[in-house]
Amino acid sequence: MSLAQEMFAIAPAMGKANLSASQLKLLSGKSRWIFRVGEAGFPTIPTIALTRAAWEGLQGERGRKEAKLRTHWVACLFKLVGKDAQPPTLVVRTSAAAHNGGLMPAKMGIAAPANPEDSVDPARPLAKAIKAAFDSYGFGQGWTGRSDEDRGKQIVLVQASADGEIEQFLTRNATTGAIGPAPVDGSPLPRLPESVNALVALVDAKAGRHMCCTVAIKRGQIIFVSARPSQVSAAADLEAAVDRVNRKIWSAQNAVSRIDPTRMAQLLHPRLRSTEGMSPIAMGLGVSPGAASGAVVFNPEDAARLRARGKHCILVVNETGPSDIEGMKAATGILTARGGMSSHAGVIARITGKPCVAGVRTLSVDAAEMVCRIGDREFRTGDRLTIDGSDGAVYVGTLPLAQPHIGGAISTLLGWSNATRTIAVRTNAETVESAMTALSFGAEGIGLARSEHMFFSPERMVALRRMILSEDEDDRSRAIHGLVDFQTGDYSALFSAMKGLPVNVRLFDPPLHEFLPRTDEDIEETAASLGLAVRALRLRLERIAEVNPMLGHRGVRLAITYPEILSMQMQAIMAGVRAASDTQSEPVSVEVMVPFVSTATEVAWVRDRVNTIAANSGLLRTERVKFSFGTMIELPRACLRAGDIAQMVDFFSFGTNDLTQTTFGISRDDAPTFLAAYQRKGVYERDPFVTIDEKGVGEMIAIAIERGRAANPRLKIGICGEHAGDPASLKFFAGLGVDYVSCSPYRVPVARLTLAQASA
Amino acid sequence: MSLAQEMFAIAPAMGKANLSASQLKLLSGKSRWIFRVGEAGFPTIPTIALTRAAWEGLQGERGRKEAKLRTHWVACLFKLVGKDAQPPTLVVRTSAAAHNGGLMPAKMGIAAPANPEDSVDPARPLAKAIKAAFDSYGFGQGWTGRSDEDRGKQIVLVQASADGEIEQFLTRNATTGAIGPAPVDGSPLPRLPESVNALVALVDAKAGRHMCCTVAIKRGQIIFVSARPSQVSAAADLEAAVDRVNRKIWSAQNAVSRIDPTRMAQLLHPRLRSTEGMSPIAMGLGVSPGAASGAVVFNPEDAARLRARGKHCILVVNETGPSDIEGMKAATGILTARGGMSSHAGVIARITGKPCVAGVRTLSVDAAEMVCRIGDREFRTGDRLTIDGSDGAVYVGTLPLAQPHIGGAISTLLGWSNATRTIAVRTNAETVESAMTALSFGAEGIGLARSEHMFFSPERMVALRRMILSEDEDDRSRAIHGLVDFQTGDYSALFSAMKGLPVNVRLFDPPLHEFLPRTDEDIEETAASLGLAVRALRLRLERIAEVNPMLGHRGVRLAITYPEILSMQMQAIMAGVRAASDTQSEPVSVEVMVPFVSTATEVAWVRDRVNTIAANSGLLRTERVKFSFGTMIELPRACLRAGDIAQMVDFFSFGTNDLTQTTFGISRDDAPTFLAAYQRKGVYERDPFVTIDEKGVGEMIAIAIERGRAANPRLKIGICGEHAGDPASLKFFAGLGVDYVSCSPYRVPVARLTLAQASA
Repeated sequence: MSLAQEMFAIAPAMGKANLSASQLKLLSGKSRWIFRVGEAGFPTIPTIALTRAAWEGLQGERGRKEAKLRTHWVACLFKLVGKDAQPPTLVVRTSAAAHNGGLMPAKMGIAAPANPEDSVDPARPLAKAIKAAFDSYGFGQGWTGRSDEDRGKQIVLVQASADGEIEQFLTRNATTGAIGPAPVDGSPLPRLPESVNALVALVDAKAGRHMCCTVAIKRGQIIFVSARPSQVSAAADLEAAVDRVNRKIWSAQNAVSRIDPTRMAQLLHPRLRSTEGMSPIAMGLGVSPGAASGAVVFNPEDAARLRARGKHCILVVNETGPSDIEGMKAATGILTARGGMSSHAGVIARITGKPCVAGVRTLSVDAAEMVCRIGDREFRTGDRLTIDGSDGAVYVGTLPLAQPHIGGAISTLLGWSNATRTIAVRTNAETVESAMTALSFGAEGIGLARSEHMFFSPERMVALRRMILSEDEDDRSRAIHGLVDFQTGDYSALFSAMKGLPVNVRLFDPPLHEFLPRTDEDIEETAASLGLAVRALRLRLERIAEVNPMLGHRGVRLAITYPEILSMQMQAIMAGVRAASDTQSEPVSVEVMVPFVSTATEVAWVRDRVNTIAANSGLLRTERVKFSFGTMIELPRACLRAGDIAQMVDFFSFGTNDLTQTTFGISRDDAPTFLAAYQRKGVYERDPFVTIDEKGVGEMIAIAIERGRAANPRLKIGICGEHAGDPASLKFFAGLGVDYVSCSPYRVPVARLTLAQASA
Repeated sequence: MSLAQEMFAIAPAMGKANLSASQLKLLSGKSRWIFRVGEAGFPTIPTIALTRAAWEGLQGERGRKEAKLRTHWVACLFKLVGKDAQPPTLVVRTSAAAHNGGLMPAKMGIAAPANPEDSVDPARPLAKAIKAAFDSYGFGQGWTGRSDEDRGKQIVLVQASADGEIEQFLTRNATTGAIGPAPVDGSPLPRLPESVNALVALVDAKAGRHMCCTVAIKRGQIIFVSARPSQVSAAADLEAAVDRVNRKIWSAQNAVSRIDPTRMAQLLHPRLRSTEGMSPIAMGLGVSPGAASGAVVFNPEDAARLRARGKHCILVVNETGPSDIEGMKAATGILTARGGMSSHAGVIARITGKPCVAGVRTLSVDAAEMVCRIGDREFRTGDRLTIDGSDGAVYVGTLPLAQPHIGGAISTLLGWSNATRTIAVRTNAETVESAMTALSFGAEGIGLARSEHMFFSPERMVALRRMILSEDEDDRSRAIHGLVDFQTGDYSALFSAMKGLPVNVRLFDPPLHEFLPRTDEDIEETAASLGLAVRALRLRLERIAEVNPMLGHRGVRLAITYPEILSMQMQAIMAGVRAASDTQSEPVSVEVMVPFVSTATEVAWVRDRVNTIAANSGLLRTERVKFSFGTMIELPRACLRAGDIAQMVDFFSFGTNDLTQTTFGISRDDAPTFLAAYQRKGVYERDPFVTIDEKGVGEMIAIAIERGRAANPRLKIGICGEHAGDPASLKFFAGLGVDYVSCSPYRVPVARLTLAQASA
């Protein structure tokens, strides 16, 4: 492309633009919209463009006292002159692909150049404005690090001034997503002529997203001036997408592919189950919807620490600023003393989908002393609060939350998504309640029921502790006898709730000492309930304590050292299968999974015992039960030995959390102390516990799948780590050809949508 | 081979044996020695052999009233008849490849059969003895699991009775290894005619190990009856090997290949540096040489736990039995109240090379209460004792030990081993003392100087704690200033001691909190020395505490989060280089190594800073300093990304301990709770922390070497985990083509010998 061709009309005052392919490629942002609307035949303000390379060519020529390019430039400027042959007043605008804070605002009211030299002399108004526009690209961050070639292609627009009233409107409603024209930022909708509807339909169809249009109105006629995308809530985006399908602008598949799954997750907020009998201790503004309960924290470090341990927390601050973003992301909810809907806290909270109550006037925070006051009550780190970001209420303590249900547009979109999705989506759940939530979100089974989570109630904990603290095998056998009944009921209820969908039960996993008492008071109580002397209990606890519990006596190691536990679990599972099978018409589909294996011998050892107990139950001979046995793959050695292991199992389920911990040598609990510095210094691009590390952990998984399938072609492959709820990771898993993923219930819609996009 | 050929004379009374290749293959144990000695022309007792297959053939024929095989058998028996044509009295013996408790002892004084039927009739003496001999193979464990084919090839010997005195002697002295004849088991050496020397030389040359010979002596003539191998001390084996080279029976290379490196390690015992002014609190029998200090333990579990933490311990018991073997292996030394040189404790201690004092009469042990008394003093778990297994002395407390020096036969053998060895052997050392020990053992450099070990003295610990507990970067900078001087002196001394051999310094590695106070007393002292309130110190300590320190804030993560530490270390290293370089003629060769990396970005980050400080020192421009930079490879992700990492470094050094921990997901500290059960139940064949797991960890290393060398062909590869001192692991590393290994000083000879064998 010659430099002469880098000066051209994108919307000439008369006739069509007739751009070459190279010229089309230069268009982005505003220039692209002006061209497209003009091209579609809608009255559009005359506009020409020139690249930085052309501009520099003009200036170079001027130094050499030449005028060849200038002639082209003057001809180009004449494209702004309409039928009346009057040179218009001019406007100079930048036109960048991405919004960029440093760019020059539009420069209005520039007189048309009186002669050719005026059109290129930076001392004269037009050339001066063009130079300032190009210079402003240098200050923005958007172009940093681009190559010289890209820099040459930066463009500046020169427009004829619009005659008439300048007005702005959105193509769709910012809240409901309904087709516009709609008001911008709460300002009233201007009076617009009927013909605006054609413009709205045109821009909406071409953009496929909310756009903010600038138009000139003169004598009831609309002239298009410019348009830019407008960021709206995920809900509005979703409604708009469904509406476009209904209007036949998009196909259903198109809608599915256009919605960002990460943003959809933000629509699924928990809410307070009931506030009956509860009074808020304070009211603020509900600036980001959803309810959240958790421990009070005053800084990002504590928020990150709690999040790493899987705990919820509420970040309490006077007001938020850029330094609080990490803390806000880590927190479950945000509570501020100052600010409103458009405050930093509100904006960030809505973008990240965190419930937020702002502007609580009775709140004061002393971050240094780590204490806050609400009215006359004092709260310190760890105290519990519940906030409702929908109505702005603040409650003391932990109020019960209800998981969101999906309906309306989400439900419609997810329904469409099933058409292209080839990978099943299951959920991680061990209670009937969360199983039901997941089912309502479209889960196709349970991919991970963490059996140890069934012991979290106080009376069961006593029974469990008795087992862990027993001194020999006989003691232990007696202690676990009582545990079978508890578990049988749990399993039976879970199988029944899932109505024949597969339920994957992971055998007992965590380090035993996680279930043991820690505080003095707890130790004394436990000693009393077990009939032990406190001193004897302390000695026993010391012996069980581990230096690195994550890598200790857990998973399959428990099953092999304490076969009584394995036996108890299997008996409870089979009894649960029998009970559920007696009351439902669908066959019970149960999968038993052994965690934390590193050798095929371990798998064989457990498989023999599991299969014996399952066979002895007599249930496998009927058509009413489907039973399979598999293993977690969550250690590097298991990935390497996947060929040996695959021959002994029906399925692999990748535990990506532990696999990330061992592949990187990072304890997730302890990572916050250096992870922030790592991200700040650019050592990690992303947190590997949020998005799968494709080059390391990902290769481990790929090796295991390849070796496993080679050894056992019927091997079923699942993913049950938390990465199974992260869109970027899900795309990677889809590429590996897994059979299913399993994520937390409220992530099921995210996984469904992401996998539909990945399979399309 | 026909059954007739499975009955044959291995030493006929007259003439030569003339065995076929198939018949030779049947010979093992005694039968082989009888054949070889007879074949060499030495007078040998007439002996015939028959296989179980032949025997069963004879019995089958007898049932069918046939006599074809019997004719062969009778002919074979006639080979026992000498010139005098008198049928001799007979002896029936088994002849198994391995010693086997269940086998029938030799049956003597059997009358020669009076007729052919007597030779096969199990009711008659000869056939009865033969049947009993074959039957006894069934009871031994040696043949369990062998195939039927092997079973058919079991053989029984029939010999003429020896005329004269039966005597036994060893071919070499059991203690010194000097050529025999030598007494057996402390019984006096029988009077033997001159011609025995020829027999001794013959058997020693053919066997290449200590043999116990049985001969008959009649009228000053020796007749060879039988021989079997005799187990002797590693020292005697070694002396004998060197002596065989001196006698030109073996080549030097032959001697190198015949010594078991594992057994050689047992010769290198520490000894008490001085007992001046120390009185033993008790004396027993020194039944296994070497000195040991450590914490008192009363059971194998505690011994294993301490060993896993790298602590020394003394197993104290009344007497040992088979159930104590694991404990003895885990203990540093053994102390018993009962038993002597040939007690279970003595035998096992010598085999495993552990110092042992037995038969301490003033010692009584109450294992259940975990307490022992020596005279009127009481000792509990954790109290310190020192024992000297050479003279039987027992001391209270920890006495200083001196590492062994090598000389004599070991030194000669290791000298020979250099001829075939192609892989360098370095040592893990950070003090001048252990560096000197390693040099005396032939170390060719330091492969791992753990810089953090330089802070273990009390006054340095205070300085280090001040640094760790500092609240911000300025504080930290001030605190580390004082640490540079300490380190400079250490590095300078270490470089000087190594006289130009390479010294590899690993940057600060362990979790910071390992250096922090734990007990109340220690915390109070630290608070006082740092000028902090005890409560403030406790809060700070709580914040630093880690859940899984092994996977926490350590290694390269410290360098990146606290660049001041990295800077301090590098300045100290370069100052040490300058100081050493000023006083020695050899160039200083220093390698700097960053631990615990998982990404190439981490390596690049550290490399840039390390290289800048090294370059700024001005030392790199001279020929007097060789400087290189490399990384530990000890995490699965580093193995996978070895290609990226290799482009940034001069060398890889594999930390096999941490790589085993992360590949298996096992904390070495916590493994004892299930490792014993795992080995008992056959889940692990070997402890992966002792012998490298070839199929898992080994593949990780192989992947890293392949990718690393592909990306950087000049990459140097070393191994610095404890596996580098284990012969089985060393053989595996040799197969991977590493450039050097680095082990603890007293393992250097083991590595030299093993690698010589592997390269031969």
